Amino acid sequence: MNEAAMTLEGWYALHDFRSLNWTAWTAADDEERAVALEELHAFMQEWSPVEEAKQGSSAVYSIVGQKADFVMMFLRESLEDLNQLETAFNKIAFAQYTTKAYSYVSIVELSNYLAGGSDGSDPMQNPHVIARLKPVLPQAKHICFYPMNKKRELADNWYMLDMDKRRELMASHGLIGRGYAGKVKQIITGSVGFDDWEWGVTLFAEDPLQFKKLVYEMRFDEVSARYGEFGPFYVGNLLTEDSFEEMLKL
Amino acid sequence: MNEAAMTLEGWYALHDFRSLNWTAWTAADDEERAVALEELHAFMQEWSPVEEAKQGSSAVYSIVGQKADFVMMFLRESLEDLNQLETAFNKIAFAQYTTKAYSYVSIVELSNYLAGGSDGSDPMQNPHVIARLKPVLPQAKHICFYPMNKKRELADNWYMLDMDKRRELMASHGLIGRGYAGKVKQIITGSVGFDDWEWGVTLFAEDPLQFKKLVYEMRFDEVSARYGEFGPFYVGNLLTEDSFEEMLKL
Amino acid sequence: MNEAAMTLEGWYALHDFRSLNWTAWTAADDEERAVALEELHAFMQEWSPVEEAKQGSSAVYSIVGQKADFVMMFLRESLEDLNQLETAFNKIAFAQYTTKAYSYVSIVELSNYLAGGSDGSDPMQNPHVIARLKPVLPQAKHICFYPMNKKRELADNWYMLDMDKRRELMASHGLIGRGYAGKVKQIITGSVGFDDWEWGVTLFAEDPLQFKKLVYEMRFDEVSARYGEFGPFYVGNLLTEDSFEEMLKL
Amino acid sequence: MNEAAMTLEGWYALHDFRSLNWTAWTAADDEERAVALEELHAFMQEWSPVEEAKQGSSAVYSIVGQKADFVMMFLRESLEDLNQLETAFNKIAFAQYTTKAYSYVSIVELSNYLAGGSDGSDPMQNPHVIARLKPVLPQAKHICFYPMNKKRELADNWYMLDMDKRRELMASHGLIGRGYAGKVKQIITGSVGFDDWEWGVTLFAEDPLQFKKLVYEMRFDEVSARYGEFGPFYVGNLLTEDSFEEMLKL
Amino acid sequence: MNEAAMTLEGWYALHDFRSLNWTAWTAADDEERAVALEELHAFMQEWSPVEEAKQGSSAVYSIVGQKADFVMMFLRESLEDLNQLETAFNKIAFAQYTTKAYSYVSIVELSNYLAGGSDGSDPMQNPHVIARLKPVLPQAKHICFYPMNKKRELADNWYMLDMDKRRELMASHGLIGRGYAGKVKQIITGSVGFDDWEWGVTLFAEDPLQFKKLVYEMRFDEVSARYGEFGPFYVGNLLTEDSFEEMLKL
Repeated sequence: MNEAAMTLEGWYALHDFRSLNWTAWTAADDEERAVALEELHAFMQEWSPVEEAKQGSSAVYSIVGQKADFVMMFLRESLEDLNQLETAFNKIAFAQYTTKAYSYVSIVELSNYLAGGSDGSDPMQNPHVIARLKPVLPQAKHICFYPMNKKRELADNWYMLDMDKRRELMASHGLIGRGYAGKVKQIITGSVGFDDWEWGVTLFAEDPLQFKKLVYEMRFDEVSARYGEFGPFYVGNLLTEDSFEEMLKL
Repeated sequence: MNEAAMTLEGWYALHDFRSLNWTAWTAADDEERAVALEELHAFMQEWSPVEEAKQGSSAVYSIVGQKADFVMMFLRESLEDLNQLETAFNKIAFAQYTTKAYSYVSIVELSNYLAGGSDGSDPMQNPHVIARLKPVLPQAKHICFYPMNKKRELADNWYMLDMDKRRELMASHGLIGRGYAGKVKQIITGSVGFDDWEWGVTLFAEDPLQFKKLVYEMRFDEVSARYGEFGPFYVGNLLTEDSFEEMLKL
Repeated sequence: MNEAAMTLEGWYALHDFRSLNWTAWTAADDEERAVALEELHAFMQEWSPVEEAKQGSSAVYSIVGQKADFVMMFLRESLEDLNQLETAFNKIAFAQYTTKAYSYVSIVELSNYLAGGSDGSDPMQNPHVIARLKPVLPQAKHICFYPMNKKRELADNWYMLDMDKRRELMASHGLIGRGYAGKVKQIITGSVGFDDWEWGVTLFAEDPLQFKKLVYEMRFDEVSARYGEFGPFYVGNLLTEDSFEEMLKL
Repeated sequence: MNEAAMTLEGWYALHDFRSLNWTAWTAADDEERAVALEELHAFMQEWSPVEEAKQGSSAVYSIVGQKADFVMMFLRESLEDLNQLETAFNKIAFAQYTTKAYSYVSIVELSNYLAGGSDGSDPMQNPHVIARLKPVLPQAKHICFYPMNKKRELADNWYMLDMDKRRELMASHGLIGRGYAGKVKQIITGSVGFDDWEWGVTLFAEDPLQFKKLVYEMRFDEVSARYGEFGPFYVGNLLTEDSFEEMLKL
Repeated sequence: MNEAAMTLEGWYALHDFRSLNWTAWTAADDEERAVALEELHAFMQEWSPVEEAKQGSSAVYSIVGQKADFVMMFLRESLEDLNQLETAFNKIAFAQYTTKAYSYVSIVELSNYLAGGSDGSDPMQNPHVIARLKPVLPQAKHICFYPMNKKRELADNWYMLDMDKRRELMASHGLIGRGYAGKVKQIITGSVGFDDWEWGVTLFAEDPLQFKKLVYEMRFDEVSARYGEFGPFYVGNLLTEDSFEEMLKL
């Protein structure tokens, strides 16, 4: 039997992509839209105390292109918390002007390929580890999200490699990521057993060109070149309460 | 000719995933919603006598993410029973506020890779076997469901392996599962001839992180690594009558 | 050039899977539903004379799960006959409460791998052959339908095998089918040039578990294991005029 | 660098598959339907002068099964002509009772694998070539349409074969087609750069069984067996103005 | 680690494919349509100052076939600019008569396989380079768009080739493109990290047959033959303000 990589897990994550039903939104009257915006505002206001209590983190970004109009990204303590957020959103008036576009369920993850910490100490007592497992979402100007698998195709089967080979490949992979330190912040979430791909990758940057540079450079690295399978890519721009309202204003 | 594994079958299974049409639900008036909830309550009440008569088992879970809002899982004596449940649900007022999200038709199965019982005795007289073939669904806090195939791709063809090789691989696979005894309860249902994948896997746990740990560890096992093909994953939280009503309350 | 198997063809076949729009059906008033049921009854009444004149055969089954609510299976002399049935159905009031779910166009087929008849006599004069090419659909309690291809993937390419190899493989495959004589009745329809897969397989049984047993056992046979590609599976229960009406009754 | 086959091109082709919205059609009143039919009639009347001026050819066929209700096939001098036909159709009242089902954009093509004409003469001055590049659509009783690719999968890569090998394979392939002369008329349209597959194949026959015989026999030929990838298949029956009206009559 | 090709990037690109809801459009009254056209006109008028200020370029083409009715192609300085264009369009009355068909997010790109410029000078100071990175969209009569990947499939893995081999292959590939100089103008946009494929290819020509000639010839080149994976193809005709209005006129 092959040895699985050990992982550490932190907050559960929900990426909730929504499209606006612009026909309904523009057909609504001013009062209906005002009520909808007010309920949206109230819904978003509830995120701050959670963030302050260090029980989660939240962000909203617009999405460029037709795949969605915006994504709400939530990190929370439990699947129940995420489910309650979804349901609460579904009940507000604003939600009735939106349609589902895509969603992703996962959990923030550190793998021991990279985490080190083999000195016997409990990594969950390490504040650096905790900070990565329960991260505050940066309010960077841009987001990039995509889910991915490690391939299992005949000779190119990641899960049939032994642990040493995988660790070696991941180390080289990690070096590329480190070259973007200060330019791209990356949150890896694991979704085996939770959603259709094995991982979700969420990137944050002030300059979205760095997303392209990073992902393209990694694609030549053996971990991605031979073993990476990629799902849909979403890219977007930060929405503050103000810019969200601006986007919705007719 | 290659030898197929013998299987024992128990109750038929229907996983019925539904989404709520929140726009219609929030647009309904209080009385319409009250009628809908009453009919839902009456529909669910009919499950208890079946459970008590040991003629089936039922459960409802919310689903996290946009794939569905909830799943009703039914185990029953026959395909006709499952069909009647579907039709009965489709006729109640509550159903008119839901839309189809996904469904899966299968039958609880034990394979002789694991079942042992080669001592000549009739396994269908064995109460331990019957308990596994006609299981009472645990009211665990979390559910995970996914369908899967065994791969048939050139050199990685499960169905071209001989019986001994398959038994050996399944034994190692089973060991991983046993390591999660007490943490994850697993019900395997066969769907060859019934639905689009060969098996359905339904997992129950108090801690949903155990789903990820189990499925990830198994993925490094040769049975999954080389031969597993996985469909969509659904994860959710237990809905009691109370929490279901809470979820639907505006 | 490789030698194609010769085939004999009989009646054209249409599998017409439909879903009921339950929201519209339950929202209709009693009179609208009565008219719809009356027109459905009249539509179905026209099948008997065709059956009696040995110009075709018809059956209706409910489908378990969300893929469809029922399937109408028609065998007729020509594509025009099938098209007229579709169009006639589309015009009745009942059809307006249904939506398309799936359909399959094919023709009943016997291949010379199995048909034998190489004694120079005209097989189309053989009543046993005719009975298989223009079969009366059994009113068995259960139906199973799936379309399939023979694979053409690198080393696993059915169409690059020579005729002798294919005949040998099909003979072994046929033996499994014969083991289910009296339990499962099978109608093979060819759809090369007519629909997206190469064949349709329609199985009938009193005990639906036999579908699973048969298809699973065959999957270990080299014809399926190496060369079979399978489409969606549909399973259902016989609908008589009475049970169809019962299903639709509110 | 490998040598591409030279091709000759004639008329542009649009296959426009439509479904009827039967619920809207049956809900319309007699006058609305009369207006719709009148506008459809007027739309179709405009095809004759084009045909007479040898500037194009047109045909309508019903489609069997749920994929579509009918297909309009247009051959015209330019993409602009095809676009104007689409737009003109979209504007008539009848179109409002239809929904899009599928479409295919391509151009009638002769490849030099078969066209010969290597004697230095200009093939576009050859009336036989012109007759094939700008064909009058036969009013055969049946149509079959499917798009296809030549495969590029590891060892089975058509585009990595040298010209001589491709010519040899195509010659054997062509022989099969010639065996159906008088039974099946075939129009090959190229769609590289225009639509999602590389070619469209449109077959016409009085006996639709010949579609199956031809396509099945070809599947054993190496060009199809190793290198053919096939898209959806559509089969249908000729619609004259009368039979189209009959189909639409309630 | 393999060496990634360096790339230069210019304007961000959005291809926004839309379908017209002809039923709504024909059901609207003259005044509603007039308002819609007026708002569309105003929306399009805002493109000229951007073009004049060399801050972007815009074009509209009809699309042949059912995939879409038209595409708006935008080149702009930032993702925010593209997002604002989308949102602005979504708010105008005309947009309420359209539905989403497809979109693509990318950035104009030159790769150093072709760009040369290894003399140490800053290519971003080179006016020829800038003209290619921030191109004025030609008002050619026809457009062709398709997204593509470089394949990573076992032995056919572009990203596992070394830099020299990739440069050599791309050079031969580029020669074909140069053979179409004056006939086809090509804009390559990179979308790694932005959308589901790795590149978008937009071709412009006066004669659309040149699209087919170019793409077909390239398919025999090893870069495409072994390593190209192609997405959907869209082909269309230039829409001026006049011809767009003509298309929409009832």
